[in-house]
Amino acid sequence: MSVQPRGEETRTRILYAAQEAFARYGYDATGVAEICRRAGVTKGGFYHHFPSKQDVFLEMLECWLDGLDQQMEAGRTGEKTVLEELLDMTAMMPAVFRDAGGRLPLFLEFLTKAGHSHAVWQATVAPFRKYHDFFADMIKDGMEEGSLRDVDPDLASHLLLAFVVGLLAIGLLDPQGADWGQVTQKGMGMLLEGLRKSKEDE
Amino acid sequence: MSVQPRGEETRTRILYAAQEAFARYGYDATGVAEICRRAGVTKGGFYHHFPSKQDVFLEMLECWLDGLDQQMEAGRTGEKTVLEELLDMTAMMPAVFRDAGGRLPLFLEFLTKAGHSHAVWQATVAPFRKYHDFFADMIKDGMEEGSLRDVDPDLASHLLLAFVVGLLAIGLLDPQGADWGQVTQKGMGMLLEGLRKSKEDE
Repeated sequence: MSVQPRGEETRTRILYAAQEAFARYGYDATGVAEICRRAGVTKGGFYHHFPSKQDVFLEMLECWLDGLDQQMEAGRTGEKTVLEELLDMTAMMPAVFRDAGGRLPLFLEFLTKAGHSHAVWQATVAPFRKYHDFFADMIKDGMEEGSLRDVDPDLASHLLLAFVVGLLAIGLLDPQGADWGQVTQKGMGMLLEGLRKSKEDE
Repeated sequence: MSVQPRGEETRTRILYAAQEAFARYGYDATGVAEICRRAGVTKGGFYHHFPSKQDVFLEMLECWLDGLDQQMEAGRTGEKTVLEELLDMTAMMPAVFRDAGGRLPLFLEFLTKAGHSHAVWQATVAPFRKYHDFFADMIKDGMEEGSLRDVDPDLASHLLLAFVVGLLAIGLLDPQGADWGQVTQKGMGMLLEGLRKSKEDE
């Protein structure tokens, strides 16, 4: 039995139904009627919780990104050096990639369809800037504690994020082109090796 | 007066008209009728040259990618070290980005629309693998001549390409987030610095 209040339960059911329908038919081809049918709610019930299909998608997106956030924050235990923490996060990359990769085509369809509204822009760009700041701060901490060499933290953070985003895009375009999980892990290792403070730097 | 044979000239006119119409209305919203109107050809004339709208787009894409190819090949003069040639290519990046950035939204719309046909896959993935091989070969040459340190050329090439593709994607999503031309140039410099053979490596 659910411990959620009744309204919350319906909301969650709509989100799950929409996720399944979007994954199956794509964003554009999924109508509110189909989501209602799968969730077992009336249109009135749907619109009580969400003003539009776009809002359902935005809330799904927010859930995914919150999950990513929590994984990133969990990586910052403070019990290791920043370099070690970054290497640990690298080991999680293949799993993150598997999750994100399956959702990326849908996300791209949503972006090209739902386009240029301010709400969509906010939901997609704001998390990005947050990830950027997260890694820039982390790199700054690593320089202070002495595990990373002196670099421009903003630039190094752009480099890390661009690498991850680029691999996601290429892996999506050409899944057979390489073992992308392995390329990610080894490539991140190569990048972090470049950030590691060496004897020469001292 | 044109020196192209009449058929070639019509073909070129269709491609130009399509390019303008796609840029203005998007791929999906542009009909063959609109392309014909702009190019001043009949539907019969259009279908004499192209089996479908998708084929027009694929030929446009091929033209763009050929241009990129020629720029890359031109960078390999053989008169400099590979490290210097890579740094020279980096200086061309802001211009490449300006060009590509304007076309990327259209390309994404095309990919999500025209989807999963073999012809589309070929046209988008084959160039990618070619760029990958181009840079992997270049890095191998650099290791042999001694300007680059010993790395896995495949891995280093994936790293370079993923960085460029990732920056294109992020720059498209968040054009105001940073001076992306500058981030690209400095970030590439940072990556190449990591590939440079140092005294320590000898």
